[in-house]
Amino acid sequence: MPNDFLDQCRARLGEHYVLTDPADTAPFLLDWRKRFQGTALAVLRPGSAGEVADVVALCATHGVAIVPQGGNTGLCGGATPDTSGRQVVLSLQRLNRIRNVDTINDTITVEAGCILQVIQEEAASAGRLFPLSLAAEGSCTIGGNLSTNAGGTGVLRYGNARELCLGLEVVTPQGELWDGLRGLRKNNTGYDLRDLYIGAEGTLGIITAAVLKLYPAPAAQLTALAGLATPRDALALLDLARRMAGPLLTGFELMSDFCLALVGKHYPHMRYPFAERQPQTVLLELSDSESESHAREIFERLMEAAFEQGIVRDAVVAESGAQSQALWDLREHIPLAQADEGKNIKHDVSVPISRIADFIEATDAALADAFPGLRMVTFGHLGDGNLHYNVSPPEGTDYDAFLVNQASINRLVHDSVHAHDGSISAEHGLGQLKREEIVRYKSPLEIRLMQAIKQALDPQGIMNPGKVV
Amino acid sequence: MPNDFLDQCRARLGEHYVLTDPADTAPFLLDWRKRFQGTALAVLRPGSAGEVADVVALCATHGVAIVPQGGNTGLCGGATPDTSGRQVVLSLQRLNRIRNVDTINDTITVEAGCILQVIQEEAASAGRLFPLSLAAEGSCTIGGNLSTNAGGTGVLRYGNARELCLGLEVVTPQGELWDGLRGLRKNNTGYDLRDLYIGAEGTLGIITAAVLKLYPAPAAQLTALAGLATPRDALALLDLARRMAGPLLTGFELMSDFCLALVGKHYPHMRYPFAERQPQTVLLELSDSESESHAREIFERLMEAAFEQGIVRDAVVAESGAQSQALWDLREHIPLAQADEGKNIKHDVSVPISRIADFIEATDAALADAFPGLRMVTFGHLGDGNLHYNVSPPEGTDYDAFLVNQASINRLVHDSVHAHDGSISAEHGLGQLKREEIVRYKSPLEIRLMQAIKQALDPQGIMNPGKVV
Repeated sequence: MPNDFLDQCRARLGEHYVLTDPADTAPFLLDWRKRFQGTALAVLRPGSAGEVADVVALCATHGVAIVPQGGNTGLCGGATPDTSGRQVVLSLQRLNRIRNVDTINDTITVEAGCILQVIQEEAASAGRLFPLSLAAEGSCTIGGNLSTNAGGTGVLRYGNARELCLGLEVVTPQGELWDGLRGLRKNNTGYDLRDLYIGAEGTLGIITAAVLKLYPAPAAQLTALAGLATPRDALALLDLARRMAGPLLTGFELMSDFCLALVGKHYPHMRYPFAERQPQTVLLELSDSESESHAREIFERLMEAAFEQGIVRDAVVAESGAQSQALWDLREHIPLAQADEGKNIKHDVSVPISRIADFIEATDAALADAFPGLRMVTFGHLGDGNLHYNVSPPEGTDYDAFLVNQASINRLVHDSVHAHDGSISAEHGLGQLKREEIVRYKSPLEIRLMQAIKQALDPQGIMNPGKVV
Repeated sequence: MPNDFLDQCRARLGEHYVLTDPADTAPFLLDWRKRFQGTALAVLRPGSAGEVADVVALCATHGVAIVPQGGNTGLCGGATPDTSGRQVVLSLQRLNRIRNVDTINDTITVEAGCILQVIQEEAASAGRLFPLSLAAEGSCTIGGNLSTNAGGTGVLRYGNARELCLGLEVVTPQGELWDGLRGLRKNNTGYDLRDLYIGAEGTLGIITAAVLKLYPAPAAQLTALAGLATPRDALALLDLARRMAGPLLTGFELMSDFCLALVGKHYPHMRYPFAERQPQTVLLELSDSESESHAREIFERLMEAAFEQGIVRDAVVAESGAQSQALWDLREHIPLAQADEGKNIKHDVSVPISRIADFIEATDAALADAFPGLRMVTFGHLGDGNLHYNVSPPEGTDYDAFLVNQASINRLVHDSVHAHDGSISAEHGLGQLKREEIVRYKSPLEIRLMQAIKQALDPQGIMNPGKVV
């Protein structure tokens, strides 16, 4: 069977696009964080939605399970095959055309394999903004972004990948092509298939193209840093900023002092922005359709009010776009500095914004109690209730020795998230990493509902088995 | 069986909340537009989500079909039972508690039977905005708004009901209660059940409560009217307004001269805003987090640029909030004036914004050709690509005589919508009114996918049968 199947794939895609040589397939079989190593019957590289449909139909006929893969930058192993060697990886990278840009409808139609940054640049060259932005944007693909409902730094104002998508083209597990590529802001004609495929991590079908929303490019983007005492003060600043800046507020990122200390240690050229150390720092971003000076005025009024109310201890407002970028660089160097410091145990969690301070206080205390000396690398998208709540070993401890505690640390953190009405995967998805874990926190009913949908749309169970549900 | 079933319902809800007397049930059996008259075994009026779950479980046991109903203001007969007399209407009106307001998380948790306007008022009293706004807001319920994914005038900036909802509580067709009442901006842990129930018009389960997003109340809302020559000029104004006002632009409504002439005819006290008649009028709304004078400045700059570019022929900017409301009144009197003029054939359509002018030109011409003398009542949410494209009989023609053309007029309009990549139901849903019609425009694959989901979640077929799919 496998040979017959592979021959049919070769006949459809061309020899060159059915990879079986280990040297060729290796990059597709290991996830970005190097935690999941799979094997595969082959890596298939179709070049069009029609080719995707045809090879999926071949897989269905031969009962071959499919692992869709975009830029292979996922953090939960959702795009890595298992170790049976009987699955195929279906790479979408060759579907990389921008099909259409419509500046009146403010939409861009792109194929699944388009790199996120390419889409951002295409939008910018049309005087528009595509606001999805995240660390992997130089290599992740939009198909993967949609399949994991990616978040990032722009969610506060623009929403997740889901909110930025108007329509999809999807290949079903039976190899049929659904054309749902609608560029409509309003369309109430039946079940929301679009949002079902978004976030399903390739377990219900394969996204091959999407219609995405564009926004007018802002006239200016300006950032500021505020130094504060506690996460609770950061919440007070968020409330004030939302009221005074309204929809101009497009970024609100929290960084603990330890995060910025790590940046200073590993990137000594990056200047610490305040005269004295601040326990917490918030990066704010305004996107203004008028001018940089208007954004600056708003920042000045906001910081003045925050000082008066005793919320903020020190503040720096960028003088220019270039200086704004330098402030963002501080934030973006946290993941790098944390990697330079050594591995840690990562959590991608969210709680209602109103419970963030409680969550941090309670969880920090419980961890310190159970594992004295832990160093918390706490930063993230406070405006979305989303924290990267990462746990580093005590200074001088070896990470691998420390790793024996991983399961109990995860349990403690996730139980606390759950107790604060939160989510154990805010923006990274479940993949294979959290597929078992989630069963502890979702009701049996919700799991059954998900299974019923999976069974209805993929009765053969060939779409990315072992992921999500 | 029916008696046994009703006795069990009475035992659970109390005698008083199981209506069978025709005098009591009548208001629940006729839709708002008086196009659909049903009958029912009973009208059930549970008072809590637990009671909803229990009576749905009873229905499942006895094989009784359920028609969920909120404020009974739907426009497509989605909440009206059939004429068999074997269905029950399940009214959610008694589930009308505001469960929680969280001004830091900017969320409000409400039960399905809450009147939309009550939610708006509750938000306002907390200094927040709940931006869903539509004509029926004084009597429609949020459960119905979510079940039909209601649109309205705020979609341009804030999205449809779907985009305003973070979490749901739902009773399944088996009478189980799913607690998905999450107040999270980011949560990627499996299939998007929330968005599947939203817009499903009660065919997959019954929404009993929801967590909704709030926004800071704007410091000022100001409107302006612009007189223009054509819908194409309106598109140019929209583009300019989006670039110059960015996210402050919260309303962009198109009204043809005939619409405003009808308002003038039936409401002569309402002053026509321009010195000369304008073929098209656009109402713009800005919501400003700074001040009224800032909003006014933006309007003045915008109109100046629009005059310079020859887009706009005349313009009026409101001097105050009160005057803004008077301009909105003009827009809101169109449906009233149109009703005073006599019945017409209504269409709730959307197309990509970039194709609106083409759509209006092509469809107006085709209708004029096929039915000389027709009068087009064309108005709507241009910023969302959504038109209420209503067809009035030629002057002096009797509506009922004219009605023989309804099927062919619908066909012509909907075929044109489809040819322009649009939707035949932008914001009203399918209900029973458009359930057959949609089959002409959706692919057989999409219909099958919808049926598979229906079958998976409601295998007994007891949830609002005969609607949507």
